[in-house]
Amino acid sequence: MESEIERVPILRLTEESRSNLDDVVARESPLTIILNNEELVTLLCSPKDLNYLAVGFLFSEGLLESKDEIKKVLVDGQRGVVRVETSNDKALTNEFLFKRLITSGCGRGASFYSAADAQNLAKIESRMEISTGEVLSLVREFQQRSEVYRTTGGVHSAALCDTRSILVFNEDIGRHNAIDKVFGECVLKDIPTDERMVITSGRISSEMLLKVARRNIPIIVSKSAPTNLGVKLADNLGITLLGFARGKRVNAYTHDWRIVSNGKQ
Amino acid sequence: MESEIERVPILRLTEESRSNLDDVVARESPLTIILNNEELVTLLCSPKDLNYLAVGFLFSEGLLESKDEIKKVLVDGQRGVVRVETSNDKALTNEFLFKRLITSGCGRGASFYSAADAQNLAKIESRMEISTGEVLSLVREFQQRSEVYRTTGGVHSAALCDTRSILVFNEDIGRHNAIDKVFGECVLKDIPTDERMVITSGRISSEMLLKVARRNIPIIVSKSAPTNLGVKLADNLGITLLGFARGKRVNAYTHDWRIVSNGKQ
Repeated sequence: MESEIERVPILRLTEESRSNLDDVVARESPLTIILNNEELVTLLCSPKDLNYLAVGFLFSEGLLESKDEIKKVLVDGQRGVVRVETSNDKALTNEFLFKRLITSGCGRGASFYSAADAQNLAKIESRMEISTGEVLSLVREFQQRSEVYRTTGGVHSAALCDTRSILVFNEDIGRHNAIDKVFGECVLKDIPTDERMVITSGRISSEMLLKVARRNIPIIVSKSAPTNLGVKLADNLGITLLGFARGKRVNAYTHDWRIVSNGKQ
Repeated sequence: MESEIERVPILRLTEESRSNLDDVVARESPLTIILNNEELVTLLCSPKDLNYLAVGFLFSEGLLESKDEIKKVLVDGQRGVVRVETSNDKALTNEFLFKRLITSGCGRGASFYSAADAQNLAKIESRMEISTGEVLSLVREFQQRSEVYRTTGGVHSAALCDTRSILVFNEDIGRHNAIDKVFGECVLKDIPTDERMVITSGRISSEMLLKVARRNIPIIVSKSAPTNLGVKLADNLGITLLGFARGKRVNAYTHDWRIVSNGKQ
């Protein structure tokens, strides 16, 4: 965890006292992704698993579709650069550059919600089912694994799991990055994502839904709230959206037929 | 608040029960900002105070520097478009377009941290002082004002205050948008920002620091954590960075001389 945190001196203040202490904060570093010698983007992220982040980002943005396309992933952690080379020497299309140009500021991420994006995605048909008890137990395990969060209070977590256990887990200062790291690891290690559930610590907005839909994932659960656009997209895309998973209860916003009573299992 | 929330039916699940309820989620809408007939960016935001958001965004990005430059701000709330016209018919420079092109994906916002950006900003010289008790009392008031958050759990808040009270307050699904809305209102209503403090509900990363530095604000406080880059920038820019302001205590990370003991006042 050393690379993801940094010790800093602080002054702890109350109305009555001032005390010098050592505290720990999350590291934030720029990562530049270069695709076939073309500088694509610079993300601010937690400086760990940069290969997963770069690959996950490229898939989330629709720039890569299959692991077979990847020829090399070269990480230069010191300089914060990941170079991805593809077999077909894929160049960025004008359409992609234009899309980024007009949408680059979307308060919380690189990928952009557009009606076209959502319409191009196939509806998730998975018949996966999970019980409320299994969901709540996985969310508890998820929170226990969030080490950097517990130490710094300053990062988001994301995980891929089946009905029994967490399969892939990651943390990052950005909630989009945390999910992209999970998906990047899945791609590089050939871990299937369909018939599985994503857990995220962050709020579920439209962009999160599009990322999950691109990986063909039928269920997403968060400790936090969804937005109305997140709910609408989940409904249209056939995804089960669960929010406010805390303690002994959870809210189902869409496609709740995938959540079965414990008794039925 | 009606425009910022939406009622949705949910199924509340526990291991023992399933009940149908009505819940409330935060609305998320696209806003396209057009500067002098040039489509600049599309943000996902809470659909309220779009004029403040557009103007605040343009100032945060360094595209506008004075209110005098603004000729017209036309809001089309239905279509989610704000047109800003400037007196000098300012066009986007190639430098700006290029910068956005290579940096558009930074996990959490449109503005990008670069050493150059930070070096161009002047160090904050303000001698403003505030007591720990005043900070904590303002943070309490801040939390009480976060109406949409209390209703939906899905938005961020930001405020500008002096040592006595909150002067400008806003909420948005994006933490960058919430601050930009506050700054946009300040610009349009001629409310000075120097010698004042910003409160934010979100984590303090490098991008937040740059926004605050551009408005010449000496103190930023959050209920949440800072990142190491946030701490470094605050230190270099002469900004007092306070984090984890909760209940009766708060952590000072940089320039703690601005926080005076209650007894000294």
